Amino acid sequence: MTGTYVHGYRPRENERLHDQAGTLVDLLHSDTAYPAGSTVLEAGCGVGAQTVTLARRSPQARFTSVDISADSIAEAARRIDRAGLANVEFGQADILALPYDAESFDHVFVCFVLEHLARPADALAILTGLLRPGGTITVIEGDHGSTYFHPHDPDAHAAIRCQIELQARAGGDALVGRQLYPLMAAADLDGVQVGPRMVYVDSSRPELVDGFTRKTFTAMIEGVRDPAIAAGLIEPPRFDAGVRALHRTTEEDGVFCYTFFKGVGEKRGT
Amino acid sequence: MTGTYVHGYRPRENERLHDQAGTLVDLLHSDTAYPAGSTVLEAGCGVGAQTVTLARRSPQARFTSVDISADSIAEAARRIDRAGLANVEFGQADILALPYDAESFDHVFVCFVLEHLARPADALAILTGLLRPGGTITVIEGDHGSTYFHPHDPDAHAAIRCQIELQARAGGDALVGRQLYPLMAAADLDGVQVGPRMVYVDSSRPELVDGFTRKTFTAMIEGVRDPAIAAGLIEPPRFDAGVRALHRTTEEDGVFCYTFFKGVGEKRGT
Repeated sequence: MTGTYVHGYRPRENERLHDQAGTLVDLLHSDTAYPAGSTVLEAGCGVGAQTVTLARRSPQARFTSVDISADSIAEAARRIDRAGLANVEFGQADILALPYDAESFDHVFVCFVLEHLARPADALAILTGLLRPGGTITVIEGDHGSTYFHPHDPDAHAAIRCQIELQARAGGDALVGRQLYPLMAAADLDGVQVGPRMVYVDSSRPELVDGFTRKTFTAMIEGVRDPAIAAGLIEPPRFDAGVRALHRTTEEDGVFCYTFFKGVGEKRGT
Repeated sequence: MTGTYVHGYRPRENERLHDQAGTLVDLLHSDTAYPAGSTVLEAGCGVGAQTVTLARRSPQARFTSVDISADSIAEAARRIDRAGLANVEFGQADILALPYDAESFDHVFVCFVLEHLARPADALAILTGLLRPGGTITVIEGDHGSTYFHPHDPDAHAAIRCQIELQARAGGDALVGRQLYPLMAAADLDGVQVGPRMVYVDSSRPELVDGFTRKTFTAMIEGVRDPAIAAGLIEPPRFDAGVRALHRTTEEDGVFCYTFFKGVGEKRGT
């Protein structure tokens, strides 16, 4: 009998690293970097959660990060200052009425923005119009309908559906992630490629149990308790049972799954 | 302005390849291979769908593939013969009563089997008992509750729930994929690692549209029409509408998502 198996037989390292991306930042951003000197529009930067990562990963690129909220921009600018980064300019504008010339950016980056828009296809058409031919647009969105977990619990799914319904009533779409390919394929783009970025959490990954299941996803659902109840979407005991069930998935035998989608396309015309 | 962006900026090639595994075989098996001379038990080989792939990818390993069904074994043996492979022996046995000595295999492989068992933890305990210390067990299972698609359709989900309910009534669990980590962590194994293997299908991947969405998943759901209706789980018009909605996801703007889970652990005791 050969002894070569003694140390076990492991999956290819690159697969392991891909599956086990330690943080959400790795999972979503590890393959995004922009060349020195290129100009990048970040549309809908919010408080700069992604801006710091983008600017740090592409220190020689020049970012223009815009948001509709002046307060958010102020916070994003503080974060960039604190990070010691100097390659980001900020602007205040509606994503559907951006004050830039056609074909004036080398690249566009959009993250967690389409989910809030009533007309995401229009937004993509406008953003694509700002790209130089051959430039790329990168889009990252979540999909709350991709959520499942062990132990399975109908009340937890009912609580999640409250978030989806409230977002729909606000004009958004919490299921936009799965729609990235048709949305991007309908824009003036070549070579659109969309891939899932699945967050898989079990108790062997404690940083994701705490950082994603508990403090990101479950906290987000907990945050809609009052509006969901006020809107008559759910009875308080059922909502609370659902949140308890989400916390239950953070125990030793629990598992939690959620999928983001990332798409890249290239402006036609080269 | 730098011109380096002209040819676009693409994700790292290994990520792209991982995301776009052209076939289900690549997605599920590309990181499984066994050393020359090692002995591998394939428990629950069925008609040999995985056996041919396993034996071909590890031509110097020796496989023992067992199933409870003599008819299935005969078909599996024919497939192995037709593939020109000579490194597989077959045996007929119940996975809960296998006629092998403790610690008599270097590795164990189980694929699409736990989903059919009422006591998957017991099966894993038995299989782990057959492993030599330091040997590995690899488990692959699907999870029908991981299914979602665009356009979203409640009737399609109702039809899928029929399959899940029928499998539960037969003593199985079509949601077992998400439970692999706790199931394997409870066995006599070290270093259990579970990762999702998500099948993401959009119309840029026509071979998966046809091979997976249409001919694998939707065909499986269509196959439970009669028993689901006979069991009173659903009205025929709703089931048929659900199946039409699943076919609708194979159109140009459709998207289909399903996730398998793959786990590997190492027998304690080295």
